[in-house]
Amino acid sequence: MKLVTYLIKADELNIQMNEGVGARLGWVADSYVVDTVFAQRWLSAKRGISFPHLLPSDLLTLLDRGKSEFHMLEEVKKMLDEEPLAKLRVEGEPVVIRLEEAQLLAPVPLPRSVRDFYAFEQHVKTSRKRRGLDMIPEWYQIPVFYFSNHRSVVGQDASVAKPSYSEKLDFELEIACVIGRKGKNISADHAIDYIAGFTIMNDWSARDVQRKEMAVGLGPAKGKDFATSLGPYLVTLDELEDRRDRDRWDLKMTARVNGKTISEGNAKDLYWSFAQMIERASQDAELVPGDVIGSGTVGTGCILELGPEVQRWLQPGDLVELEIERLGVLRNRIVKG
Amino acid sequence: MKLVTYLIKADELNIQMNEGVGARLGWVADSYVVDTVFAQRWLSAKRGISFPHLLPSDLLTLLDRGKSEFHMLEEVKKMLDEEPLAKLRVEGEPVVIRLEEAQLLAPVPLPRSVRDFYAFEQHVKTSRKRRGLDMIPEWYQIPVFYFSNHRSVVGQDASVAKPSYSEKLDFELEIACVIGRKGKNISADHAIDYIAGFTIMNDWSARDVQRKEMAVGLGPAKGKDFATSLGPYLVTLDELEDRRDRDRWDLKMTARVNGKTISEGNAKDLYWSFAQMIERASQDAELVPGDVIGSGTVGTGCILELGPEVQRWLQPGDLVELEIERLGVLRNRIVKG
Repeated sequence: MKLVTYLIKADELNIQMNEGVGARLGWVADSYVVDTVFAQRWLSAKRGISFPHLLPSDLLTLLDRGKSEFHMLEEVKKMLDEEPLAKLRVEGEPVVIRLEEAQLLAPVPLPRSVRDFYAFEQHVKTSRKRRGLDMIPEWYQIPVFYFSNHRSVVGQDASVAKPSYSEKLDFELEIACVIGRKGKNISADHAIDYIAGFTIMNDWSARDVQRKEMAVGLGPAKGKDFATSLGPYLVTLDELEDRRDRDRWDLKMTARVNGKTISEGNAKDLYWSFAQMIERASQDAELVPGDVIGSGTVGTGCILELGPEVQRWLQPGDLVELEIERLGVLRNRIVKG
Repeated sequence: MKLVTYLIKADELNIQMNEGVGARLGWVADSYVVDTVFAQRWLSAKRGISFPHLLPSDLLTLLDRGKSEFHMLEEVKKMLDEEPLAKLRVEGEPVVIRLEEAQLLAPVPLPRSVRDFYAFEQHVKTSRKRRGLDMIPEWYQIPVFYFSNHRSVVGQDASVAKPSYSEKLDFELEIACVIGRKGKNISADHAIDYIAGFTIMNDWSARDVQRKEMAVGLGPAKGKDFATSLGPYLVTLDELEDRRDRDRWDLKMTARVNGKTISEGNAKDLYWSFAQMIERASQDAELVPGDVIGSGTVGTGCILELGPEVQRWLQPGDLVELEIERLGVLRNRIVKG
């Protein structure tokens, strides 16, 4: 399933994106978004199907309620799959809207936390080489992450403001999972059961700020905390099963700036797998539904790595598109900060 | 005011501390906790006072509602100050309980985020010297922080489990503020208006893990993410006004392990003030009520700095008490992980 959190586009709504106010939960079917709540109401009203309760209108609550709730959603979807979606109405409201009429937020507009790992070897090697540094032996011993600002998450087509204090704005092409179950001290062997699905992540980076603050030793903060894009969908694992080899998924990853492809990689090249990242993250710390875990940048997946001969730093007006096979295209335009 | 989030002690409650379920909001008066909601009900029932609405039973909602809500709370407190607190009952319930019968959670049991700075010069200098490193020039140019795990916050008297993967468990004596108002790009000149109050923070640290992961460059994560203590109270700024000199507060800070004083410092020795930290944190990133900002360790305020000649690493059974003048004593015992 391709789950989305969306708003019906309306200029006058003036919605606080981060808080998810007014946001609704749906899934993508062809060129439509099907609303979970209206779908269920339609099945009750027109097909006389009775449900023990209504599905929630947000993904966090759906995940919090556990697997049975997810199964109910799958049942609802299955029953709708046979119907002429565009024509369905209940209480005067359409059950679906056209994808292009939906304003997609991040699948989880306000994650409970965001951990970002550093799990692709090529990215770490090349970025360090550019700064004249050797590879770090500790990198091969443990998967390392930092906590990013979970309150700065934005979604598909959101404008990203170039921070006023940076002249070196970069993107980072990453794949991220959303945690679907509560757990602590999860072993890598069981970790996949804790993944609700995957999405694309753009870990926007102000390289000049990042470099200066990282010299102090606490990692990146202001270099990253102004925005992180997630989306467009949360793609559940069943849709990716044919691309899975144990704890790796074979999914091509591509980045384009203003229509020109500048990065190509693959999620299967992760040195540390998502299973290993989850094991590490959950050691003596509880993971909860709605936590996001990012992979770190895929090899070639940012300007820092590619260098100015391939791409200058991002400027207002630039369009950045990150594509991952099966997960869609995550698209954001830079605006003046 | 000394605000507390508390539970009535009851073994059978089996409460999820982090979620704040069943938690109540109160203030400390002498040796009692006065419950905000019961206080207001008592005033309505026994003094015939009518309120536009009930105060919330949690601090986040109180802060979200803004200054007028805080003023209502101050009015309620003022009216109660004249009464014989221990005797008050409404609908058969006592309005106060004895402080020792209250299980205090962190004042904000689930902060919206935790940023931890590195703002005391002596701590940075001495910790680096112990590792044979010079002071970092960038440290004097910008106040630097990292995001810690806001989901691992615990409060007064909570047991802290020594992580299974660490042999070098340390405490860190810090002062923290809780943000009381939403804001972005807040200038240092106005930053104090955004502080709801101060509390004590113990940024528990697994030094062996921290050292290894920090070599990779993303800062501390697993070295810190298993627990952070906050409490016992949130002390509002009006109570500290006589100790304020512009954006510094003169408050002695002390740490004891098993009753022995091993650290002494003062909040006024901050190189970067809380006003400057708030300015930095809010640059192009929104702060919201319930965000926590920690100072970083005060000089001498951890074992890493003091060295084994003063204190060995913490072991199960050890009692760590952090005291800050006017803010109380934050007390936690180490248990086996």
